[in-house]
Amino acid sequence: MKLSQLPKFTLKENPREATTASHRLLLRAGMIRQIGSGIFAYLPVFYRTVRKIENIVRNEMDKAGACELKLPILQPKELWEESGRWTRYTEIDGIMYHMVGRRENELCLAPTAEEMVVDVTRHAVNSYKDLPVNFYQIAEKFRDEIRPRFGLMRGSEFTMKDGYSFDVDEAKMSETYEKMRVAYNEIFKKCGLRFKMVQADSGAIGGSGSAEFMVLANEGEDTILSCDTCDYAANVEKATTLNDTPKSEEKIKKMKVLDTPNVGTMDELEKLTGKPKNQGMKTVLYMVDSRPVAVFIRGDLDINETKFANLFGGNEFIRPMTDKEVRDLTGAEPGSIGPHELNEKIRVYFDKSTQNLVNFLVGANETGKHKDNVNWERDIALPDEFHDLRLVRQGDRCPYCQGKLEESHGIEVGHIFKLGTKYSEAMKCVYKDEKGVEKPCQMGCYGIGITRLAQASVEQNHDEKGIVWPEEIAPFRVHLVALKNEDASVREFADKLYADLEKMGIDTLYDDTAHMAGEKFADADLIGCPIRLTVSPRNLAEHKIEWKMRTEAEAQLLDHETVLARLGA
Amino acid sequence: MKLSQLPKFTLKENPREATTASHRLLLRAGMIRQIGSGIFAYLPVFYRTVRKIENIVRNEMDKAGACELKLPILQPKELWEESGRWTRYTEIDGIMYHMVGRRENELCLAPTAEEMVVDVTRHAVNSYKDLPVNFYQIAEKFRDEIRPRFGLMRGSEFTMKDGYSFDVDEAKMSETYEKMRVAYNEIFKKCGLRFKMVQADSGAIGGSGSAEFMVLANEGEDTILSCDTCDYAANVEKATTLNDTPKSEEKIKKMKVLDTPNVGTMDELEKLTGKPKNQGMKTVLYMVDSRPVAVFIRGDLDINETKFANLFGGNEFIRPMTDKEVRDLTGAEPGSIGPHELNEKIRVYFDKSTQNLVNFLVGANETGKHKDNVNWERDIALPDEFHDLRLVRQGDRCPYCQGKLEESHGIEVGHIFKLGTKYSEAMKCVYKDEKGVEKPCQMGCYGIGITRLAQASVEQNHDEKGIVWPEEIAPFRVHLVALKNEDASVREFADKLYADLEKMGIDTLYDDTAHMAGEKFADADLIGCPIRLTVSPRNLAEHKIEWKMRTEAEAQLLDHETVLARLGA
Repeated sequence: MKLSQLPKFTLKENPREATTASHRLLLRAGMIRQIGSGIFAYLPVFYRTVRKIENIVRNEMDKAGACELKLPILQPKELWEESGRWTRYTEIDGIMYHMVGRRENELCLAPTAEEMVVDVTRHAVNSYKDLPVNFYQIAEKFRDEIRPRFGLMRGSEFTMKDGYSFDVDEAKMSETYEKMRVAYNEIFKKCGLRFKMVQADSGAIGGSGSAEFMVLANEGEDTILSCDTCDYAANVEKATTLNDTPKSEEKIKKMKVLDTPNVGTMDELEKLTGKPKNQGMKTVLYMVDSRPVAVFIRGDLDINETKFANLFGGNEFIRPMTDKEVRDLTGAEPGSIGPHELNEKIRVYFDKSTQNLVNFLVGANETGKHKDNVNWERDIALPDEFHDLRLVRQGDRCPYCQGKLEESHGIEVGHIFKLGTKYSEAMKCVYKDEKGVEKPCQMGCYGIGITRLAQASVEQNHDEKGIVWPEEIAPFRVHLVALKNEDASVREFADKLYADLEKMGIDTLYDDTAHMAGEKFADADLIGCPIRLTVSPRNLAEHKIEWKMRTEAEAQLLDHETVLARLGA
Repeated sequence: MKLSQLPKFTLKENPREATTASHRLLLRAGMIRQIGSGIFAYLPVFYRTVRKIENIVRNEMDKAGACELKLPILQPKELWEESGRWTRYTEIDGIMYHMVGRRENELCLAPTAEEMVVDVTRHAVNSYKDLPVNFYQIAEKFRDEIRPRFGLMRGSEFTMKDGYSFDVDEAKMSETYEKMRVAYNEIFKKCGLRFKMVQADSGAIGGSGSAEFMVLANEGEDTILSCDTCDYAANVEKATTLNDTPKSEEKIKKMKVLDTPNVGTMDELEKLTGKPKNQGMKTVLYMVDSRPVAVFIRGDLDINETKFANLFGGNEFIRPMTDKEVRDLTGAEPGSIGPHELNEKIRVYFDKSTQNLVNFLVGANETGKHKDNVNWERDIALPDEFHDLRLVRQGDRCPYCQGKLEESHGIEVGHIFKLGTKYSEAMKCVYKDEKGVEKPCQMGCYGIGITRLAQASVEQNHDEKGIVWPEEIAPFRVHLVALKNEDASVREFADKLYADLEKMGIDTLYDDTAHMAGEKFADADLIGCPIRLTVSPRNLAEHKIEWKMRTEAEAQLLDHETVLARLGA
């Protein structure tokens, strides 16, 4: 492509609205243009990267035995009522764009396509002989986000690869899931990105297992915990650790009440009483819909709210209790609540970290008082179950090998799920087995955020001058700059070089504009193609072309043949 | 692709809802599945054809110097208010899907993208040096049709290539338009289709010139008139002809009133009076919004309502007058209305065919009466202008060379427009010329209905057994059938042949299912790939493969090498 074919899309100034490096760079480098809240045009140079990613995804999906189709963006309400998701998505979450057509028909814009693909499949699948099937599409998706932000990261409209598999049973479904896992690894490798597969929370979509693929980036929204010894890695939402509260041989002591005036935090309590935080319990109070709930965890730890929410069905509205609600229910201020003699209307959950505590310190349910030497069974009944509700942190121990967990950050670009029969049961996507018995298909689903991946790549790969695209998904491999191309010999030489590169199938962005040298080089760095070639009167006098890698500081002067040979290699 | 990867999408019976051959075949051959009114899923085999067409379009657009980008489907109301099209499209025509987002933001779904591309361009173009630019995208479009029908022909959601060019002046815009015309010819040629470029009506989109590309098909919705001698061809909506009313030397006669009781049509009038229809005037009465209008044309001809509507601004609601309105305004029944002494409240338009008439017969504006020997000037004032309002028909004369016009039918698959400055003026898409004077960009716009083209190809190319894809856009070049593949030698041979074909880059649909021979052959004919290869125990015994072209009745037995050589050639 010649830059003269485009108006000047690059910007001199950093756009004010951008909050992350990648958002800023995509705008400045003329890759995208914002049209509305969360709505972006993909400009020509960027769209080449999008299509390169799409083709990598397509090739790996095809190789893994999935079949590409295209499902409609407009989806009739009726399908979403069958799955039971219409009200949740349009009213409760409000995440789904929806409207009424001229024939009073209600429609939504695909936020995802489980309903649609189940509809296509259930009409064609009859027997176990028809299975497995594995469909995917690359298509626009829509979400009416409360706060669209970070450019393409959380937009109203974005490009996604979504795939759905149908198998006869869980074992077969797991085989398909495993194939997809391998294919996903291959895709992110082929995109030239540093990434990590992590155990993930399945969230509202349900299902028995899921993994996320994270592009690693310092400013990434997601926190990952990875073992420094074994392969374990998990999203912080899902991460677990060893229960590191030692069993104590300490003798059970007599319970006593302590005066703890104005104590609001565990740190203050430790300071006042001299008893280490990890020998007490922290109390956190929530309203789950209209039910009061208390959660107890060892005093030095924090609650993982995703794990807590997963204790319930996923349709609840969960929020922290207000101070007034705490006072009304317990008769005490929030800092003084504990499990002993707590109002029985409050449902209680205990984290595993509390199980081995002996002679522990807890709130007394009386303002400015705590109780010390509280003990299981003597003072508080053992719960039926201790839950894993702990927010795992850097330095915690790996649940598999006791290695040390390290924290890093990433951007979720892929997610694979074992979905089970949630949709196939609700929507009667069934097959007859060898004995003629009707059974629901076992589903898996598999997503990749294509445009999100493109931006994540920029978040991972940039410097102060601009984007540094991995060669595999760079919009062009070569950025050819003709300096002073009012000089006919420069123009002719550069035109010829461009034609040669095109003929060799090397995709090239040719800066044949009349801009000044400084501007051309700044744009080349901003746009970030891997190889910059410069033709100038001075180089030409020496029969040389300047070769510079975007990742290197130094340029080299090479002759024409060497340049072509290097590119051809 | 292996057919065993898919459930059985082909249907045994003709689907009832299909009204055209192509719609019926796309459904039966498992190419598409209807999800809702005008909403279709593109199933895996068909989607390959869609993508092949997209790639042909993309290559030719790139070659012609256009740059691909992707504009959002969600479009903010504000942009459509700038162009003045929001109310027309959402309320008057009601053709545009629209909705309110969670932040009370109003959005529509792209029915087209002039506003969007103008917004992208106006922010980047400053000077004449930035022009020309020529953008295109391949993307979903949405229209809330009153009556979605004919499958993909008139759907609620469809894939379209839409392109938009920006030039400094009309001459440059015409050059770009001409490049696009040439590229469009190349595209339809490369798709392997019989097509015709015709002069077209510009319709509501406005502009100074436009051409349509028609895929020829007997059942096509559009009527084309083409000259049997020169290159002239036009959509019937736009077609013109020679004014074939001869100038008469006849002496002007005295006007007389005739009794014409119960005469309603020109034929009845000719029969009663003996005066040929082409020596009289036919009157047609309309309401244009609330204004009464009469149109006069030679008695043997008909009005072209598109041409008539184009006399007005394009925002009017036009309908035939009711009999009651005719009586109230003229005092006479509809069959007896004429231009002489007509109520002056009625605005009149005369077709060119009436200009040379002498001593003509017209309605008398009195029930059951006509006037003969009416003449221009003596009886009726000459209008300022005679308009071309004539519906051209088979056998009429070519306006350029007097050749004979022949009628054929087609399906519009492409449309190119000289758009002018309608959008660039309304939305201030301007540039500074050499002297620093601000001017609006001259726009062109260029569309191809990708999914419509795919169906049009089926309408043009099918037989009683199924689809007959042109090789260029066939989902697969080869349909490989393994008969009795429970036989290990058949299965192994066919698997190997499939692997060889894939390795040679020959796209192959491999029927490796356990279906019966008859079913497999019927499906191959229905799906319609150009070459069918059959591996069977009998052929294998003779070391042969059966080779059959979809377009030919006879099959041939060829050895393995010959098959590969033919395909490789």
